[in-house]
Amino acid sequence: MPPPDAHAQPEPSGSQTRLLDTIHAPDDLKHLAPDQLPRLARELREEIIAVTSRNGGHVGPNLGVVELTLALHRVFDTPADQLVFDVSHQSYAHKLLTGRGGAFFEKLRQTGGASGFMSRAESPHDAFGAGHAGTALSAALGLAVARDLRAAHGHVVALCGDAAFTCGLTMEALNNIVTTTRRLIVILNDNEWSIARNVGAISHYLNRLSTNRTYNKLHADLERFFTSLPGGHDLHRTWMKWKRETKDFFVESSLFEKFGLRYLGPIDGHNLGELIKNLQFAKNCATPVLLHVLTKKGLGLPAALVSPEKFHGASPYDPLTGESRRAAPPAAPPAPAWQEIFGRALLRHAQADPRIIGITGAMPSGTGLAHLAAALPRQFFDVGIAEGHAVLFAAGLAARGLRPVVAIYSTFLQRGFDQIVHDVCLQNLPVTFCLDRAGLSPHDGPTHHGLFDIAFLRPVPNALIMQPKDEDELADMLHTALAHRGPAFIRYPRGPATGVAVKPRPSALPPGQAEILREGADIVIWTLGPMADEALALAARLEAGRGLAVGVVNARYVKPLDRGLLLAQAATAPLFVTMEDHVLAGGFGSAVLETLQEAGSPVAVERIGWPDTFVGHGSDVETLRAAHGLAPDEIHRRILARWDASGKKPKPQGSTPKLREGPRTEAKPEPHENSGQD
Amino acid sequence: MPPPDAHAQPEPSGSQTRLLDTIHAPDDLKHLAPDQLPRLARELREEIIAVTSRNGGHVGPNLGVVELTLALHRVFDTPADQLVFDVSHQSYAHKLLTGRGGAFFEKLRQTGGASGFMSRAESPHDAFGAGHAGTALSAALGLAVARDLRAAHGHVVALCGDAAFTCGLTMEALNNIVTTTRRLIVILNDNEWSIARNVGAISHYLNRLSTNRTYNKLHADLERFFTSLPGGHDLHRTWMKWKRETKDFFVESSLFEKFGLRYLGPIDGHNLGELIKNLQFAKNCATPVLLHVLTKKGLGLPAALVSPEKFHGASPYDPLTGESRRAAPPAAPPAPAWQEIFGRALLRHAQADPRIIGITGAMPSGTGLAHLAAALPRQFFDVGIAEGHAVLFAAGLAARGLRPVVAIYSTFLQRGFDQIVHDVCLQNLPVTFCLDRAGLSPHDGPTHHGLFDIAFLRPVPNALIMQPKDEDELADMLHTALAHRGPAFIRYPRGPATGVAVKPRPSALPPGQAEILREGADIVIWTLGPMADEALALAARLEAGRGLAVGVVNARYVKPLDRGLLLAQAATAPLFVTMEDHVLAGGFGSAVLETLQEAGSPVAVERIGWPDTFVGHGSDVETLRAAHGLAPDEIHRRILARWDASGKKPKPQGSTPKLREGPRTEAKPEPHENSGQD
Repeated sequence: MPPPDAHAQPEPSGSQTRLLDTIHAPDDLKHLAPDQLPRLARELREEIIAVTSRNGGHVGPNLGVVELTLALHRVFDTPADQLVFDVSHQSYAHKLLTGRGGAFFEKLRQTGGASGFMSRAESPHDAFGAGHAGTALSAALGLAVARDLRAAHGHVVALCGDAAFTCGLTMEALNNIVTTTRRLIVILNDNEWSIARNVGAISHYLNRLSTNRTYNKLHADLERFFTSLPGGHDLHRTWMKWKRETKDFFVESSLFEKFGLRYLGPIDGHNLGELIKNLQFAKNCATPVLLHVLTKKGLGLPAALVSPEKFHGASPYDPLTGESRRAAPPAAPPAPAWQEIFGRALLRHAQADPRIIGITGAMPSGTGLAHLAAALPRQFFDVGIAEGHAVLFAAGLAARGLRPVVAIYSTFLQRGFDQIVHDVCLQNLPVTFCLDRAGLSPHDGPTHHGLFDIAFLRPVPNALIMQPKDEDELADMLHTALAHRGPAFIRYPRGPATGVAVKPRPSALPPGQAEILREGADIVIWTLGPMADEALALAARLEAGRGLAVGVVNARYVKPLDRGLLLAQAATAPLFVTMEDHVLAGGFGSAVLETLQEAGSPVAVERIGWPDTFVGHGSDVETLRAAHGLAPDEIHRRILARWDASGKKPKPQGSTPKLREGPRTEAKPEPHENSGQD
Repeated sequence: MPPPDAHAQPEPSGSQTRLLDTIHAPDDLKHLAPDQLPRLARELREEIIAVTSRNGGHVGPNLGVVELTLALHRVFDTPADQLVFDVSHQSYAHKLLTGRGGAFFEKLRQTGGASGFMSRAESPHDAFGAGHAGTALSAALGLAVARDLRAAHGHVVALCGDAAFTCGLTMEALNNIVTTTRRLIVILNDNEWSIARNVGAISHYLNRLSTNRTYNKLHADLERFFTSLPGGHDLHRTWMKWKRETKDFFVESSLFEKFGLRYLGPIDGHNLGELIKNLQFAKNCATPVLLHVLTKKGLGLPAALVSPEKFHGASPYDPLTGESRRAAPPAAPPAPAWQEIFGRALLRHAQADPRIIGITGAMPSGTGLAHLAAALPRQFFDVGIAEGHAVLFAAGLAARGLRPVVAIYSTFLQRGFDQIVHDVCLQNLPVTFCLDRAGLSPHDGPTHHGLFDIAFLRPVPNALIMQPKDEDELADMLHTALAHRGPAFIRYPRGPATGVAVKPRPSALPPGQAEILREGADIVIWTLGPMADEALALAARLEAGRGLAVGVVNARYVKPLDRGLLLAQAATAPLFVTMEDHVLAGGFGSAVLETLQEAGSPVAVERIGWPDTFVGHGSDVETLRAAHGLAPDEIHRRILARWDASGKKPKPQGSTPKLREGPRTEAKPEPHENSGQD
């Protein structure tokens, strides 16, 4: 979609016209004098800070690439030339320079505003969309090869952070570049951070490379040095012989040169002149080339320089102090977030049991594992943006008796699917998976919503799949998973939990046992996770409005389902409703259908969940739910319509049969495995 | 499970007792004199050839690592020391040396015999199971860290082929090794092949490394050379200064040293003395170390040396000639395999349309893409064992107007799941996926069965999912997919197709339209894929035995389902049966249930498919199906039981309503997109 009236907003009177407001397309940028560019860079930073301080967003990554983005648009001509940004959360300046400023950018990450990522649907200047890391090189290689095969012109430029090189996808692409195209420009935007500080050997290597400005110079110097020496002729012959015998090991000693890329760098990523000069050089290379550009994440916002992890993806903040801010002071302190509860609960377990290990893929804070990392660093591993390795590494730990907990966002766990099937579940290893962001990430949008995990996990044998209705149950489920002798998956959403108190000692939840929250034998609503509250409200409304006896069950387990309870209720209630924060295809409701079908139950079912479409970004969860037919009124209407279609009458009050309660077993002392409770 | 009577078979009289028969555990190997080892190596090869020539198996990879395996068991003590083999199809000698010889090995890859891969369930000497490539380093790192954290002893050795380094998982692990443990031994078994010949920059690099035996020597020599020269003192100072300033770029010039691993090699992988010496050295290293071992795939079988790809994974063969052999000459020539039909059909399309590109992950022959590779090499890409990159590269090609076809086995496509969701389907790019080996790979077993793909693909918006009933329909579906303006997935099994003729020109199949194969309004069987034949036989049997009118529908599409036909039939037939070669959880039958539920249909359903358990290896598909309740008699019994439970009577003959036929549209000429048929 084109941005509506991107520049229709009149400037407040008295303000000097900004250069930025004269840039409606990248061509406009090319007409500026070189000495105007620093001013434009400043204005871009001001605009990014103004909007992100209100809307939140990826502050640090965007402030770091302002000059680089300017230089790219100065040297290249999009959309004829194609820019692919890795993750693409650093594309704000690019958006502002390609006709997406003004009101459209002011609504960044809000309903009707700019996406926080590149999007082919948003602009022809976005050659390839992204949201997950490590995709730029492969995608750019595809674009470059398509260009080559069609004998077309145009450059393809991939911009990757250094963190992308912790990701196997990037390395797979790197292995294929030199044998696949002669023309591809890779920019390594080296800021030493992924979301947290970068990890691993490549990060260490880049650090040495970037502190060795003499490295490239020395290669040339050394040859001159040899020939200038007395007896230099012989020395030079020896030198050349050695070079030939080692087949250029010496001159190809940078990592990237081993992959066949020409290496240029390190380059100061905030020096426009140096950037433009090097990009122009790269443009004329007849071989794939990598520009190693050093940038400072958060440059231009002092608070972001001090707290790079906080300002990687920030909620609204005060641009002067960096303090997080809210529209209005909350009436009550907000409930702690799910990941906070998880992080603290995991730490307690890890303190009691040294076999418990936390693993994250570059998200120690986002997942709540930072608590463990700070208190018990030996029991914590950040493996980088390497979800496949994270899962497999956990499988290795579990195979030798440890109890790893892998904390990965639902959408990123898609990267570890094969390892879940082939390494963890097939070998039935006791790895616990905590899937944060299961449900919507409204501001980030479709690349970050976690709406598919039940469907891809449910077919895998040996998988135990749970979702807690509140944070106390999350603690119970973690306890249960750690005591389970096989793989277990716990999903929970982004943001604040429900605010209930968490018991001092967690309880074990017997696998496959649901909890009855409300009795009622006309309609039974089976809910998964914190949707239970909405189900209870719906039940009360249906009872008050139509005299229907509506039961509510907290399923707790997607797999195994509480088949006994389900079938007992199906024998009396004519209508079942399932509610889940997940797509309908293959989800929780589908598991209920399968169980009813297997037992031959004729009960009618209404399934509430996300329809078969990608859900965009928006201002909040409620707006997005309403836009997809999931507003409470709409759900109420659908349930009533299904009830009316059944032709049943409400049962007389008092006829509701009592079904068993879902009891909770008190936890026994550590260690888990010897407690005999699994 | 322990191998039953592994050595109970008496030797034929007159034969000399084999050394191999005296080896019941790795300890026995350690008592042999060094000069007995070559004889044992010869016997191992003879045994591997004898058994694989009868049973088929991974001939080449196993013949290549005989000496290496002997050396490993001579130097290390499993299970206290842990060996992790990548893919682990090269573990036959390891099995023979760890108590799994004799009758157990003779039934290799057959029901009741040894698995073709390492398996934790099979032996404590198998530290970690595998079947997919690239997992050894991550798993071994997990085992090593668990050892470190528990302050335990023992070595962890990961054996990887060079092809594993085309795989991102391996690189993710490599990035983490040096920062995570001090003690890990990696063996790079370099034979220049994955399944096909290896691809990419790393392969090229290893080739240079292995042809440069002087490389390591030169490092030491050069320093001596400097100091021995006249004026050498000054030179040496300059040299040391340079080394310091470049922070050891020079001495760390091997790729693996950049990742912090000590590099040893290249080592002759068939020289037992050299292998043992180097392994013993590695055992004492206080830093992670990589041994670069050069081996010859197929050594000991001349035919395997000549045809490495054929003998990577071979069907039974004549050990003298290398000819494939069958138990008995077939009555009729076997039908061509599904992948043959696919490969030839794709070539025809690619010849007519240069936008069509075939992509494989190291399986040009296995997928049938070899036809395209031979005829139109510019339209073919083998990206190595890099499924994530394959999918993403295809997305890049499609984003610039090409029509990529990604041919990956069902189980390996699990590696590209995130890229399918995030890059292809979210951007609705026209990439066609051909999922070979959807269904069982009986000899390979659980790591190779393709039983989850429908469940993980079905939740993804924009995905078109199909399975053909025969090879003619496969050609139609490929044609349909290539004309479709979005992602399309076609699944089909391993092995020979049904033998029907393939039309000269394929037809377009309207998306979401099923085909009625047989009319009948008591029971309707919806089948997916080549299971249609079994469904037709069942229908005839039910009609003959019980007078039931049984319809059979070839679903063609899992997504979108033919909702119109389904609901029209559901209005009259009281029982539906679904049949699929896929797990029941979230599969095709589940999609039928969802559609019926949405429409409020009360029809009873019986779903036939694989239960919620991993399916092992076995002698053939029929044996494995029977072992999981899927023998035709059992299916017949289940359908009848469900029919009887419904309490319905067969409808009088002639009352079957005529439903619409699934028409086939004749194909229009190329190009696809302009034909207006999608």
